[in-house]
Amino acid sequence: MTRNAKHPPNNEHIDNEMLKMEVNLDDISGEILGHLMDLLFDAGANDVYYTPIFMKKNRPGILLQLLCSQNELDKMKQILFTETTTLGIRYYPLTVHRAERIFRTISTKWGSVTIKEGIYGGQVIQSSPEYEECKKIALDQQIPLKKVYEEVWKQLNDY
Amino acid sequence: MTRNAKHPPNNEHIDNEMLKMEVNLDDISGEILGHLMDLLFDAGANDVYYTPIFMKKNRPGILLQLLCSQNELDKMKQILFTETTTLGIRYYPLTVHRAERIFRTISTKWGSVTIKEGIYGGQVIQSSPEYEECKKIALDQQIPLKKVYEEVWKQLNDY
Amino acid sequence: MTRNAKHPPNNEHIDNEMLKMEVNLDDISGEILGHLMDLLFDAGANDVYYTPIFMKKNRPGILLQLLCSQNELDKMKQILFTETTTLGIRYYPLTVHRAERIFRTISTKWGSVTIKEGIYGGQVIQSSPEYEECKKIALDQQIPLKKVYEEVWKQLNDY
Amino acid sequence: MTRNAKHPPNNEHIDNEMLKMEVNLDDISGEILGHLMDLLFDAGANDVYYTPIFMKKNRPGILLQLLCSQNELDKMKQILFTETTTLGIRYYPLTVHRAERIFRTISTKWGSVTIKEGIYGGQVIQSSPEYEECKKIALDQQIPLKKVYEEVWKQLNDY
Amino acid sequence: MTRNAKHPPNNEHIDNEMLKMEVNLDDISGEILGHLMDLLFDAGANDVYYTPIFMKKNRPGILLQLLCSQNELDKMKQILFTETTTLGIRYYPLTVHRAERIFRTISTKWGSVTIKEGIYGGQVIQSSPEYEECKKIALDQQIPLKKVYEEVWKQLNDY
Amino acid sequence: MTRNAKHPPNNEHIDNEMLKMEVNLDDISGEILGHLMDLLFDAGANDVYYTPIFMKKNRPGILLQLLCSQNELDKMKQILFTETTTLGIRYYPLTVHRAERIFRTISTKWGSVTIKEGIYGGQVIQSSPEYEECKKIALDQQIPLKKVYEEVWKQLNDY
Repeated sequence: MTRNAKHPPNNEHIDNEMLKMEVNLDDISGEILGHLMDLLFDAGANDVYYTPIFMKKNRPGILLQLLCSQNELDKMKQILFTETTTLGIRYYPLTVHRAERIFRTISTKWGSVTIKEGIYGGQVIQSSPEYEECKKIALDQQIPLKKVYEEVWKQLNDY
Repeated sequence: MTRNAKHPPNNEHIDNEMLKMEVNLDDISGEILGHLMDLLFDAGANDVYYTPIFMKKNRPGILLQLLCSQNELDKMKQILFTETTTLGIRYYPLTVHRAERIFRTISTKWGSVTIKEGIYGGQVIQSSPEYEECKKIALDQQIPLKKVYEEVWKQLNDY
Repeated sequence: MTRNAKHPPNNEHIDNEMLKMEVNLDDISGEILGHLMDLLFDAGANDVYYTPIFMKKNRPGILLQLLCSQNELDKMKQILFTETTTLGIRYYPLTVHRAERIFRTISTKWGSVTIKEGIYGGQVIQSSPEYEECKKIALDQQIPLKKVYEEVWKQLNDY
Repeated sequence: MTRNAKHPPNNEHIDNEMLKMEVNLDDISGEILGHLMDLLFDAGANDVYYTPIFMKKNRPGILLQLLCSQNELDKMKQILFTETTTLGIRYYPLTVHRAERIFRTISTKWGSVTIKEGIYGGQVIQSSPEYEECKKIALDQQIPLKKVYEEVWKQLNDY
Repeated sequence: MTRNAKHPPNNEHIDNEMLKMEVNLDDISGEILGHLMDLLFDAGANDVYYTPIFMKKNRPGILLQLLCSQNELDKMKQILFTETTTLGIRYYPLTVHRAERIFRTISTKWGSVTIKEGIYGGQVIQSSPEYEECKKIALDQQIPLKKVYEEVWKQLNDY
Repeated sequence: MTRNAKHPPNNEHIDNEMLKMEVNLDDISGEILGHLMDLLFDAGANDVYYTPIFMKKNRPGILLQLLCSQNELDKMKQILFTETTTLGIRYYPLTVHRAERIFRTISTKWGSVTIKEGIYGGQVIQSSPEYEECKKIALDQQIPLKKVYEEVWKQLNDY
């Protein structure tokens, strides 16, 4: 509930209230970064991702980037300063154009699957089965995940 | 014709005559590496790929790896020594287990498409439409490539 | 012709009308991304490049970035929404300082080659032979591409 | 129980029965690769990791590598062929020198933590707190994970 | 002295005068990039880092990014244009939130080590020993660098 | 002197006594890895390089690879076990084909520069100026490093 409240609406819109935050890290271990990603998503980040970078003194490092709305800025700073080794956090505004999202359900021989459809310019541009549901079917049925996706794609109507 | 002669057979088999060759490069430009990849494939390499690596003295470098049969070794050495800046080429043998490959054709509303099927343990494990044919349809029909793939997947029978 | 119209002028200038667009992708294959890059360049992108990133749930992903002028924004959005699996495209303005570009021709023993010179602060800062011309010579003459570049560099006058 | 049976013994030893397996992937999504990693670990792989690579036709791809003992080879092949899009799996033997591992428990103000010590040449070379235990403390105590590690390091005796 | 003058102050502050500069490079060698990083730091860049990227025509490339204050812009342009092969440099403003930094000294059995502490919201969030001092101890004492860090962490007071 | 003793001879030869060693690291910082690379080179490694990898539990990690002759194996193990956090080191033999190397000196307007030439099949395949000498000229003369290389290339005779 509170989680959903942070999420963008499902209609097509242009969001001018987003930020990208960035931190360069060369003195932290991968173990801590794996944990950190979960914390940032739980706190409301829209996306978090790591890029390998080459830093001074022959150090392999990581560029942490995250996307969040401007009113999450302080919460993200708090996590980044306390959980990582950085002493400086940089950020800048950006615009996000989001397609409309609608959800429908299709039936497969292994049960129903939610399809997230993306609509742009009045046209269906994406039809993506929900990953977690497909994964659950794969594990329950003991079949390859790709086979679940293939089955779903066969059931989808043209667009 | 001569190209095909170099290619592995289509039945399932274990190939013990393969090599991986490797070169580390820190004093060559990306332009030349793009050209080199084509040359190596044309000369019969089974695969060629580049991995970004961090080398001494803060140098971003590239690890070139290629797979070829042992009787292509000298030809590959010749290309690597003359086209790159390396003075040392390393290699070691490896085994490749290849699934059986069969080809069949399906019809779509935009024409026929070749499907490469992989068979392992008597089971169809893959059904991949040929990329170049799908790309041609996408360009000819002015439609997204992913839409061509989706259409193809709908036409495939279960396996 | 229309292509050239989109390109920046050759004199030194500061361009404040540029955008960077970005999309994170974890549910698309490399095959489609190879094709997409061509489409985006053909549609007028100034540059397109992919960065490997680490995304949630142990997913290797790709950050697509492209540079274009602001009046190409809608065309790029159309391609990104229809050809990729994204439902959100982000972008932000940036400034580009471009050096002056002039073109001259030099002679080599294998024919003439165009040199693109960059001029900054009244000084020649770059002299780059055109890649496609050098590559053509390499293929025609059956010689290493690096040898063509070396020959060209020997013919260039000091700067 | 069955899981442990696959694991190497804790004394220092040189293991000559290990394999590295490799697959290049350019037509699969990151979503499926995230799922695959779990499957391979569950089936007994000693390690699994992905490296971003540059493949032909401008395709960003992934090199999957896994380490397993030779008697796990068939099980790994089965998973790789059915869960990925590959039609060829390569592998080669390698030697692993493993340090002795011993486990001891230390007390912190937030409870006890298991320490895995590595011993090589009769000398303690590593003292690593168990990640999952530290993470649990961090979540339970609502404190940064790095703070848990720091506390643990303070409690460790010299070596 | 002049070097310090370029550095940000040690108190906690938000700096709105920073820039990120970027250049894409596909026709330069790693050797030159290793040298360039030193030049940019010496000229006052706050950070410089390289990211491997996939560019057109199958070229592995490098994205150079640097952070500097706006009044260093011209100096950085001069270096980038003359030392690299680029004809276009892009940049955009960003904000940096820096934690307070204080320095204190602790004693170890191998001598004293400076600790850089970061303070955010009145709380010590980091305690990092100075790398160069720890490295010197490791080399002088012929001990592993990680052992020096471990010794330092044991000496630090709680925070 | 002892350093040179470890180095391969300058004539063309095939070396069957080489090893590749590998370690996966997800619980160590970039700072320590920068230091480690120097230690390994100083101890006689022929090459050392880092590759960014994606490991379990969303951890960005590093694959350390090094090349050494078989009689350096124990020395390298000692460093890897004591300086990194690994408890397992893997390795396998490989073959290296090295081109002949000869050294000659050319004159430039800024002084002489050593050229390392590679010879393969009786043909000069490389002519590389020594990086450290070129860098010294660039710093002494206050000119771009690429300009030094360009000057050198102009002085080289055809091959």
